[in-house]
Amino acid sequence: MMRIDIITCLPRLLDSPFSHSIVKKAQEKKLVEIVVHDLYAYGKGPRKQVDDYPYGGGAGMVLMIGPIVACLEGLQAERKYDEIIYLAPDGPLFSQQRANSLALKQNIILLCGHYKGIDERIRTHFITSEISIGDYVLSGGELAAAVVVDSVVRLVPGVLSDLTSALEDSFQNNLIAPPVYTRPANFRGLEVPAVLRSGHEAKIVAFRKEIALARTAARRPELLPSHEQYNTGDKA
Amino acid sequence: MMRIDIITCLPRLLDSPFSHSIVKKAQEKKLVEIVVHDLYAYGKGPRKQVDDYPYGGGAGMVLMIGPIVACLEGLQAERKYDEIIYLAPDGPLFSQQRANSLALKQNIILLCGHYKGIDERIRTHFITSEISIGDYVLSGGELAAAVVVDSVVRLVPGVLSDLTSALEDSFQNNLIAPPVYTRPANFRGLEVPAVLRSGHEAKIVAFRKEIALARTAARRPELLPSHEQYNTGDKA
Repeated sequence: MMRIDIITCLPRLLDSPFSHSIVKKAQEKKLVEIVVHDLYAYGKGPRKQVDDYPYGGGAGMVLMIGPIVACLEGLQAERKYDEIIYLAPDGPLFSQQRANSLALKQNIILLCGHYKGIDERIRTHFITSEISIGDYVLSGGELAAAVVVDSVVRLVPGVLSDLTSALEDSFQNNLIAPPVYTRPANFRGLEVPAVLRSGHEAKIVAFRKEIALARTAARRPELLPSHEQYNTGDKA
Repeated sequence: MMRIDIITCLPRLLDSPFSHSIVKKAQEKKLVEIVVHDLYAYGKGPRKQVDDYPYGGGAGMVLMIGPIVACLEGLQAERKYDEIIYLAPDGPLFSQQRANSLALKQNIILLCGHYKGIDERIRTHFITSEISIGDYVLSGGELAAAVVVDSVVRLVPGVLSDLTSALEDSFQNNLIAPPVYTRPANFRGLEVPAVLRSGHEAKIVAFRKEIALARTAARRPELLPSHEQYNTGDKA
């Protein structure tokens, strides 16, 4: 069973994302264990302090190195971790390929920053990698951790009841998924494409492939293999 | 006051993200109103059906057009919306610039897909724009909506108590934020850079600027103005 430990100073924020949807089912099926750790349990002194003002001045508070290291070392004393990941807005961008590779791991730790960030010495000495879910700033790493967990958990074998559902996703095979339609066939004059209602399997497959390719070329051209060929050509 | 309406078939998933952190404070200060709508309230028939099998076959269920349009039109009858946004993995990528512009809006709707997706006719006829929070697949649009809400709400004037805190963020000014440090100055021999403890304001500003530039060049070169110049040079 895969185990994901999450370290945060706002554990309650993650209550509902992990108790609904596919992430709930994965835990019920004993395919994934998700453990959220409250950083305040490792806080300093009687007031359980976890943050302090930044050296050199400036706005915002910084999570201190001591409580985080205490939590990390407690976990590492219990089991070996494949990765200790800090959710950082300036880390390497998360991708479907990264989700695929994380879904194969046994034990991972996700460390959430909050407020202004965490003491830089954590980033340089106590983690193994970083993930950014995109080029925008959040008030903390908690939602980023929830995003990583959701995308990874649904790829763990056995979690999705119908395996093809994940294989047909966008970004698997470097293609954006084709459009989907359901009942009614006609809504205020807006019709479902006739080919999808034809029952003609080969034509349906060809139609979907064609739209997936056109849509990928228009919206995410960098995903297409041909894009790489062009790049190589430019350099040659 | 800014108003954000969210349409989802899993409203409970969003309970805790919106009742903690900055998003909670913004609602308490009456700066933002967030209303989550349960799509099942607009479901078809006595079983309140909201999804059906895809035309043309394939795995997964598709959210039907009827309940979504009923919910959208009910909201639009009450007020004018600046944007109706569908959270889609293949939509235009979310960015800090997009968050900045959304923070200036009055009323927006965020529409969450789930399962295999939503009927394509919604995307082509009933929304005004799409947002993808990154090139990876989630089990639904709910966490993506939570990410957009968090990033936008913290930019609404008055939400962050210290205004400079948001201005100093990564991606504002096209620079990654410099590293931060707090107490203790020495942790197991790992020291905070001396300049940050010097009290010398000008040196501290120069140090931070230098690292922010170097870090941006190493991790997100496309953010730097000079990168654009190089590109122009290549084409000339």
